[in-house]
Amino acid sequence: MKKLEEKILKEGRVLPGNILKVTSFLNHRLDVDFLMEMGEEIARLFENEKIDKILTVETSGIAIAMAAAASMHLPVVFAKKHKSHNISGDVYKTSVHSYTHGVDYTIVVNQEYLTKGERILIVDDFLANGKALEGLIDIVAQAEAEVVGCSCAIEKGFQNGGDKLRERGIRVESLAIVESMSEDSLTFR
Amino acid sequence: MKKLEEKILKEGRVLPGNILKVTSFLNHRLDVDFLMEMGEEIARLFENEKIDKILTVETSGIAIAMAAAASMHLPVVFAKKHKSHNISGDVYKTSVHSYTHGVDYTIVVNQEYLTKGERILIVDDFLANGKALEGLIDIVAQAEAEVVGCSCAIEKGFQNGGDKLRERGIRVESLAIVESMSEDSLTFR
Repeated sequence: MKKLEEKILKEGRVLPGNILKVTSFLNHRLDVDFLMEMGEEIARLFENEKIDKILTVETSGIAIAMAAAASMHLPVVFAKKHKSHNISGDVYKTSVHSYTHGVDYTIVVNQEYLTKGERILIVDDFLANGKALEGLIDIVAQAEAEVVGCSCAIEKGFQNGGDKLRERGIRVESLAIVESMSEDSLTFR
Repeated sequence: MKKLEEKILKEGRVLPGNILKVTSFLNHRLDVDFLMEMGEEIARLFENEKIDKILTVETSGIAIAMAAAASMHLPVVFAKKHKSHNISGDVYKTSVHSYTHGVDYTIVVNQEYLTKGERILIVDDFLANGKALEGLIDIVAQAEAEVVGCSCAIEKGFQNGGDKLRERGIRVESLAIVESMSEDSLTFR
């Protein structure tokens, strides 16, 4: 999505530790009109698929998931993050490693909000090592539902998480794929 | 908003500790089409006001804030929650007590995302004791911006947070105000 690439070049900042800071439009501050355009693009990419529900993970996945869902007239379920692994109740849960924060956390979805046989589109803001998406895919599998595909706003292509998922046969559509980045330059695939 | 009252009566559950559980449409699972309708209603309520930006707080305020912002073509800024009070950098911050979780946390907004003189609409999912809104109002004051009003999906009228804000002269518009609730019954103001 050309307009997203332009926005990343204009507003994004590369910080130490391979962090691409886009807090001016994608998290912290939300450029809602632009998010709605990104949502329309996700809807267009998956327009030929039957989809029942969008799944994301709090916090920063909620806005882009909601934008896609508004275009597609679908509900969203967002997995909740917990630092504790000691969670009870009727939930699907899995452990996810965050390279950004250097911690493991547990993501949790109440069983009543994912149903066997449902066709699920997974949406998130960033795709880097793919650990969050792998966790969400695991949760969909626990529910015996089906992953139609994954769509992320920004993929860090050089961290290979997206390509690992594609090699597993999962359809992954990222609106912008960063091929390389440093404090001075940023290129797209 | 009649349709919200009906949805609360149909899908809401009252849990011990004055908790009204509406995870089926407002948090955890998001009924996005209905959230967009709530957003349109917030836009209608404030249609005669000049507003520059919507301010909310993560996590569960993001969806309703985004729905209102989509209708009003405004950006959203969401305050971030931290358990630590030891936060540095160019931020506005304040301490908020959560009665639901029995803890204090710090909410933080980067200074570059709130500007002196801006007219801010504060949006959140729930209004009970009003501590989250008071914190957001404090952050707007720190930025020397102006609170146009507050709008929440569900106000627990019996916990008086909304009325305390109204007594301070702040316009508070809740889409549904719960007057009383127990496991067996729920009434609206």
